[in-house]
Amino acid sequence: MITGKNYIGNQLSAKGSKTYKTFNPQLNSENKHVFTEATTVEIQEALSLATSAYKKFKDVSGQDKAEFLNAIADEILTLDDALIKAYCEESGLPEGRAKGERGRTVFQLHMFADLVKEGSWVEACIDTAVQNREPAPKPDLRKMLIPLGPVVVFGASNFPLAYSTAGGDTAAALAAGCPVIVKSHPMHAGTGELVASAIIKAAEKTGMPNGVFSNLNSSGIEVGSQLVKHPQVKAVGFTGSIKGGRALYDLASQRNEPIPVFAEMGSINPVIILPEALKVRLESIAKTYASSITLGTGQFCTNPGLILGIKGESLDKFIKNLSDEILKIEPTCMLHSNIAHAFEKNKSKALSESKVQVAANYDSDVPANYAKQTIATVNGQVFLENPTLHHEVFGPYSIVVQCDNEVQLKDIISKLEGQLTGTMIAEESETSKYSEVISALQNRVGRLIYNGVPTGVEVCPSMTHGGPYPASTDSRFTAVGIHSIKRWVRPFSYQDWPNSMLPNALKNENPLKITRLINNKQTKGSL
Amino acid sequence: MITGKNYIGNQLSAKGSKTYKTFNPQLNSENKHVFTEATTVEIQEALSLATSAYKKFKDVSGQDKAEFLNAIADEILTLDDALIKAYCEESGLPEGRAKGERGRTVFQLHMFADLVKEGSWVEACIDTAVQNREPAPKPDLRKMLIPLGPVVVFGASNFPLAYSTAGGDTAAALAAGCPVIVKSHPMHAGTGELVASAIIKAAEKTGMPNGVFSNLNSSGIEVGSQLVKHPQVKAVGFTGSIKGGRALYDLASQRNEPIPVFAEMGSINPVIILPEALKVRLESIAKTYASSITLGTGQFCTNPGLILGIKGESLDKFIKNLSDEILKIEPTCMLHSNIAHAFEKNKSKALSESKVQVAANYDSDVPANYAKQTIATVNGQVFLENPTLHHEVFGPYSIVVQCDNEVQLKDIISKLEGQLTGTMIAEESETSKYSEVISALQNRVGRLIYNGVPTGVEVCPSMTHGGPYPASTDSRFTAVGIHSIKRWVRPFSYQDWPNSMLPNALKNENPLKITRLINNKQTKGSL
Repeated sequence: MITGKNYIGNQLSAKGSKTYKTFNPQLNSENKHVFTEATTVEIQEALSLATSAYKKFKDVSGQDKAEFLNAIADEILTLDDALIKAYCEESGLPEGRAKGERGRTVFQLHMFADLVKEGSWVEACIDTAVQNREPAPKPDLRKMLIPLGPVVVFGASNFPLAYSTAGGDTAAALAAGCPVIVKSHPMHAGTGELVASAIIKAAEKTGMPNGVFSNLNSSGIEVGSQLVKHPQVKAVGFTGSIKGGRALYDLASQRNEPIPVFAEMGSINPVIILPEALKVRLESIAKTYASSITLGTGQFCTNPGLILGIKGESLDKFIKNLSDEILKIEPTCMLHSNIAHAFEKNKSKALSESKVQVAANYDSDVPANYAKQTIATVNGQVFLENPTLHHEVFGPYSIVVQCDNEVQLKDIISKLEGQLTGTMIAEESETSKYSEVISALQNRVGRLIYNGVPTGVEVCPSMTHGGPYPASTDSRFTAVGIHSIKRWVRPFSYQDWPNSMLPNALKNENPLKITRLINNKQTKGSL
Repeated sequence: MITGKNYIGNQLSAKGSKTYKTFNPQLNSENKHVFTEATTVEIQEALSLATSAYKKFKDVSGQDKAEFLNAIADEILTLDDALIKAYCEESGLPEGRAKGERGRTVFQLHMFADLVKEGSWVEACIDTAVQNREPAPKPDLRKMLIPLGPVVVFGASNFPLAYSTAGGDTAAALAAGCPVIVKSHPMHAGTGELVASAIIKAAEKTGMPNGVFSNLNSSGIEVGSQLVKHPQVKAVGFTGSIKGGRALYDLASQRNEPIPVFAEMGSINPVIILPEALKVRLESIAKTYASSITLGTGQFCTNPGLILGIKGESLDKFIKNLSDEILKIEPTCMLHSNIAHAFEKNKSKALSESKVQVAANYDSDVPANYAKQTIATVNGQVFLENPTLHHEVFGPYSIVVQCDNEVQLKDIISKLEGQLTGTMIAEESETSKYSEVISALQNRVGRLIYNGVPTGVEVCPSMTHGGPYPASTDSRFTAVGIHSIKRWVRPFSYQDWPNSMLPNALKNENPLKITRLINNKQTKGSL
């Protein structure tokens, strides 16, 4: 049941007077539930609880954390139709998508449960003492990863489940041993509260300390900025716009004690289509990309917003095909009227830039908050010289850039801002001619895709979801996959520490049976 | 031979008009060589070379990078007496220390050479495709660590070799595949130039691209801030004061494209001495700590500047013993007259704080720039309430805090700023009583030491040299050991990339024979 209250640890709380409602973009009207924004007092309560929970939670065994994470997954599934209904009402997304995203969320929780249950993720290292070393004895040193402390998570508007309340950031932080305070996304506060209730139930059932999780409502920026500036917060996870992510990064880096912010932000995900590929399979590429550009109403951070080719007949024909294909697709609803308005505004701005041409623009009437998909074109030189065209237009929009030659193509790639992904559509025979373009593209992105589409972020150890700024605030981490846990941990060493006082991961007898680096050799053995 | 010029890649260059000299603190006079500060033009040249070198260097094989790193070590040894002489003249440190530090520097270079030659450090991951997966096929994804780009390194005043020009930051960055621009430390510009010449010779001998290394002279802050603000710089390494490190961190985080700064800064390295340990071995603890506090004239970032005990007869006796022992030690020279003056000033400030008592203060005459070692004492409540006493006094100084009980001890520990190390001097029988103190201490430090001294930073995989701010700007990394390479790399994924175009680390046939995570299993096998 949605109460509209905050979860301050295990307790529902609504001390404030500021309220707001969520919005159903399909009905173009507000939803019924009233949410009460968290107050400064409630923020402090949540943080005090998180800080005290941390003292216990950091030492909870991998086995017990796994039970907690698996229980969250179970409780989310138990919410059943109530969750799917809230999700659809608050996002305008279809039921199939809701269920798919729930599946991904549950999968991620189980994935982290498996990771911490197995236990080797702590990267345990042991270097044993050498008493008779000259000129000084070598001490016994042992290292492992430990959690940073309370983490604040800001969920994404476009993924109410998989990148929000119990999404990747939260799952990774809890797996690491960090209590989490979620700043609930105002567009899906009801979905968020339901998921928060699942986490709280799971925490209670598995005996986790009160304060291991809190969920704070907020429709503005005040709650979020109070959280990020608070001395008891030790790290921040964010998924959203460049403006939002940068604001949080700036607040965090201006603190007396700066803290890490991992913000996954915007991207236009350049796609390079090489001439031979167009010759061989123009139609299928056009069809695939028409679908990728409009998938989820173009509201993916990996949406292909920029397509680059070498100008000529083939590219002209491709633009025509892509335009025809994309206009066949039925428009769909955006997440919120604000997002639909921003799409129209940003698209109009791009299209009004000098020498930008419209190749396709869906022009039949659509219901309120539905997005009209659009393809623009521009020549290479114009694109190179106009940074406005490099900005993301969040929605079903892509611009095709007609480059003079591979030199200009390379030049454009080199001057792009950092991106989550870069894609090459090519025949293998032609790639060697473009090795410098590929090298330049690698320098600007977190993931390179060959003959595919950037949409679809596989959850697996080999995924990098991140990239050079502004794709993320720190390219050294990924937001997706088991290694995303590294955002929330730090290495910690014990020198000459008695075996009985060491954490299990570092004890001589290796009670957890994990893989460790002992005197520079990987082993599951004991000492 | 010391020329006083900058190395802009392979070329010596001195276009500027601003010059300076280094200082011999033992002789209390300037050294003869004149150093020319790098100009804006030279900075740009170094960065253009580094950027173009990066394009080649990032793909240089581990085998070839290992040869380069080993050649640097060889060339440093070839400098022989000239290097030791310059080191001693510019630091006032004795020849034995110079040779020891040279050994450490050479060891670190060989360590990184071994690491990249073996190759598994790139953390290669492969998740193979599943074509028939529902609802969508699973792509082939492969991930590895790749270098960030040009790195700027600011060396430490107190380690002219091991934490400077070819020190840990530089060795790790070169091993990662990042070109390095060193902002030479003005106190040891001659030592720096000699080491730079060794790096350049090694780069030429092993065929590394010009620009893989540059060395820029600077006596002020201008060159450093230009470098950190420059768009072609992708990361920064720094070892030094909180003020200096924080200034660079602020510059880097205010850039349009923020970049990571790993600054290892100050620390007072709390040492907790428990009552039973004092009963059993008071004299040896006092003797050991008198030596640790004065080691290297107290100019180590791991110097024990804060000793905490429970008040009483044993602690009084310990203070007396420690004072007697430390006064037996012959004063030694500080690195520079500026540092000697700062020590006197900071020490006087601490001693003049209310209710701080002097337990020992070396009061015989000493040569210029020699430091008079000092032990102060204060009670727990006063220390708790006076943040000035929590600041580092860089030099042979330590304050002993007499706590009322373990509750106050824990309270003090909890309120300390982040530290590189924390030490427990204890008998095993008494540690269980102090488990909350230990937990609080862990929360504030990067390394816990049992019955030892914090001075001495072992170079091995299990070392964490770093810690919560302000011990470092990012506690998620270490400055020492093989894992310090992680500061300069980012994960990068290839999706459905043709095997022939993949880097060797990710090819099916595993030509490098490295350990990889293939479908979630560690293996040295091929696909």
